Parts: sequence; structure tokens; C-alpha cells
Amino acid sequence: MRYSLLGNGKRMCPILCIASCELVGGDEELAMPLACALEMVHAMSLIHDDLPCMDDDDLRRGKPTNHKVFGECIAVLAGDALLSLAFEHIASKTKNVSPDRVVRAIAELGSAIGSRGVVAGQVVDIDSEGKEVSLKTLEYIHVHKTAKLVEASAVCGAIVGGADVAGIERLRKYARSIGLLYQVVDDILDVTKSSEELGKTAGKDLASDKATYPKLMGIEEAKKFAAKLVYQANEELASFDSAKAAPLYHLAKYIVRRQN
Amino acid sequence: MRYSLLGNGKRMCPILCIASCELVGGDEELAMPLACALEMVHAMSLIHDDLPCMDDDDLRRGKPTNHKVFGECIAVLAGDALLSLAFEHIASKTKNVSPDRVVRAIAELGSAIGSRGVVAGQVVDIDSEGKEVSLKTLEYIHVHKTAKLVEASAVCGAIVGGADVAGIERLRKYARSIGLLYQVVDDILDVTKSSEELGKTAGKDLASDKATYPKLMGIEEAKKFAAKLVYQANEELASFDSAKAAPLYHLAKYIVRRQN
Repeated sequence: MRYSLLGNGKRMCPILCIASCELVGGDEELAMPLACALEMVHAMSLIHDDLPCMDDDDLRRGKPTNHKVFGECIAVLAGDALLSLAFEHIASKTKNVSPDRVVRAIAELGSAIGSRGVVAGQVVDIDSEGKEVSLKTLEYIHVHKTAKLVEASAVCGAIVGGADVAGIERLRKYARSIGLLYQVVDDILDVTKSSEELGKTAGKDLASDKATYPKLMGIEEAKKFAAKLVYQANEELASFDSAKAAPLYHLAKYIVRRQN
Repeated sequence: MRYSLLGNGKRMCPILCIASCELVGGDEELAMPLACALEMVHAMSLIHDDLPCMDDDDLRRGKPTNHKVFGECIAVLAGDALLSLAFEHIASKTKNVSPDRVVRAIAELGSAIGSRGVVAGQVVDIDSEGKEVSLKTLEYIHVHKTAKLVEASAVCGAIVGGADVAGIERLRKYARSIGLLYQVVDDILDVTKSSEELGKTAGKDLASDKATYPKLMGIEEAKKFAAKLVYQANEELASFDSAKAAPLYHLAKYIVRRQN
């Protein structure tokens, strides 16, 4: 659990959660247990995705994947324990937030992971391997596999920060755009960078003939699509105080410019 | 998810959860979302336990195991989705319970599953295969792998039913005894019944040289230990209204007398 949770990582979900909480007027500490829980869920999804029966990956963030170090059995169980710890952590460690907001955040996170969230994306992804995949299916995969948890990060942060419904929905749309953006950039990096630069196996999508944005629309169009997503994300931030929204503008910029 | 959740099953955790809620004065409907969630967690733990990298079981409740029907990948993901759905379901479907009690129940359930609960038991169980195991280790395995979720079922039911601290702790001790009782009886049935009678592979513990109560203390002593656990469980019920506690007396009796 520690190996996969505490290693290198961009901490995008926790950062987004805390920034969303602060944007709507909450303190960092209100969102911290949620932020940690989001990283646990993210770590769990990576551990299980990397399993031999899933994507069968040997390298993650420049290190051997969890099952390569601890074996498949422990990797499955470490994921299970991280997932349950995430919910336990939110429920037992969140302070100074009204319990009804904690319950709403838990419902939001739960729905982001399951059969209408991350798992749905992973199932369609696995099912699509070796098949001709439409742009619509590719978007379904990424919206669910990646963007749902990003969306939940912003929404949960906004909930515990005390946001009203309108504020929550704007942050949901912002996060949906940058979640998809993240994956589009990932696809681009996979074909333009080396394994060393990425810290994970590069060219894997091409080798496994996996559907990606560059494959379906070409690299230049994929880059244009990325720019459009940044624009859409920023539009949702326009109604917030621009100084307070600065971290979220920068997060979108960081995602589109990242090199690994 | 439906295949493993909605098939045959004893529904012990949901029954215990609802009976505990009613014992402390709550209505069945207060505990129903929790009861469903407990069955989801139970189903998830069975799906993952049966995986080739874990206990590698082909038969469960008289049917092929999840991964035998849907493949390993879907089996892992179905478990993940059931686990997150469990928490989502409690948070989004529990009505007429104060949110702080919902949050407490979620914290209790989360801690029962993770690295100090079911997963801890499974890790020690897998690690003990082919080794000489002491009675103390065997009890550790069963208390965690089985009894923790049974304990959480009673405790969560009591929490949403409105129990005070003393009532919750008595139900915790009752459930801990019958949770361990369940496993002692399971061990006895494994050596005394056929696969057909059990609906799962019989004699598996012996074949894999697994530590069990009959193996470590002999069948007669194991049966005496079971009787002692029933006695301990019933003692915890003594301070409750005996008419209201009747379902829990019967549950203990059912567990010790069950034939599969």
C-alpha cells in the first residue's frame, strides 16, 4: 500500500480537491482527508490496472509495478485495502465539515469509481483491445477511466469547502475538461516520448494497437483538441474570483504542457 | 456484479445488521441500505478470494466462481465496483438516520475491510499456506478474514438504529463470537461433508494442508469450542429484551447447526 501510494506521483487529484475547496472559500484542512483518500483511490486503480490480467504493465512511475515487487495476490489485496481505507479515512478524519456534506462527498466518490465510473472505463478499454474503436468509444473510455475521478476530486473539494450547487457544477465541468485533457496529453506523450522520459513503458499504445487520440485524429488534431479542452476548462473558472482561481488555471496549463 | 451478489447466499451480514438495528429500537428500513452494502462487500471479498492468484477456487455456492465465468479481469473489476458501490449505496440511500451516524457506520465498515480487517486476514492466510500454523495465528486469520465483517454488520446496524455506546459494544462482542463461530463450523464442515452438500469444494483444506480448527485441536475439541462461542455470544444478549433479541439467539443457533 505504501509502495504505490507514497512513491512519485503528480498528486493531481489531491491538488485539485484542495484547490477547489479553497476556491469556494474553505480551508485546506477541510479537504485534506478527502485529498489523501483520492490519492488512495488513484493508487488502487493503478495497481489493479497494471495487473497481468489487465494491462499487464511492468513499469509505473519509473519503478516496477506493485505486482512485480509483491506478487499478484498482494497487489490485488493492497488495492482493496487502499479503496476501503479511502472511505474510512474520509469518514473518520474529516473535521469541521457538517456530516451531511461528508456523506455527499462519499456518495460522489463512490459513484466515480464503480460501474458508472472508473471501472466502466476500464471494462470498455479492455473490451476494445484489438478492435476498431470509434472516437466516441475512446472518449467514453477516457471520460470514465480518468476524468470521473478528476471530476469527483473537484466536486468533493467544493462540497466540503461549502460550495453552493452552481459552484459545484462549474467545478464539475472544469474538472471533466481537464480530466479528459490529461488523457489526451497522455496519448500524445506515449507516441512522442521515450520510456525513460515517461517513467513508464512508452510506445505501448502503438505496440498493442490501442486506440488513442493521435491514432484516431492525428497528432496535430489531438493537440488542437487539447487546446480546446484547456479553453473549455478556463471558461468555467471565469465566474470565480480570478486570484482565487489562479491555482486551477495553472493546473490546466501544467497538464497541457507536461512532458511526462 | 449481479452474478456474485444476487445468487444464493446466507445473507448473514445483512440479517445481522437489520436484527441489530431492530434490537436497539430502529426500523428495518434504517438499516436496509447498509445491509445491502454489507452483502456487496461480502460478495467482493469472495470474488477476489477465489481468484487464481489467491485461493484459486472453481466452485462457490454450487456455481462456477466469478472469474471462471467472466475471466480474471472482469472478476477483479466487479469486486472493485462492488466495494465502491457499497459505500456509495450507504451514503446515497440511507434515509432518516442522522448524517453523523451514517459517517460513523462508514468509518466502521471501512476499517473492517482494510489492512486491519478482512484484507489483513487474507494476507496472513495466504502467507501461512504450507507452513506450520499456531492456534493463535489461525484465530488471527479467522477473526480478521471473517469475523471483522460480521462484527461491522452488527455494529453498523446498531449505530443507524440509534444504539448507545454500551449497546454497540455488546453487539460487537456478540458478533465477534458468532463471526469466529461461523469459521470454526466452516472448518468442521469442510472435513465432514461432500462438495455436493457444501456447494463448494470439500476437503480442500485437508488437500492443501491448510491449518483448520479440526486439524489443530481435533474435531471433538473444535465442536466444544463452537459450543463455547455460542455461549459467549448469547451472554452478550442477556441484557437486551429477550423477545427482541430472539432473532440473534436464533442466528447463533443456525450458524452452529448449519450443514452447508
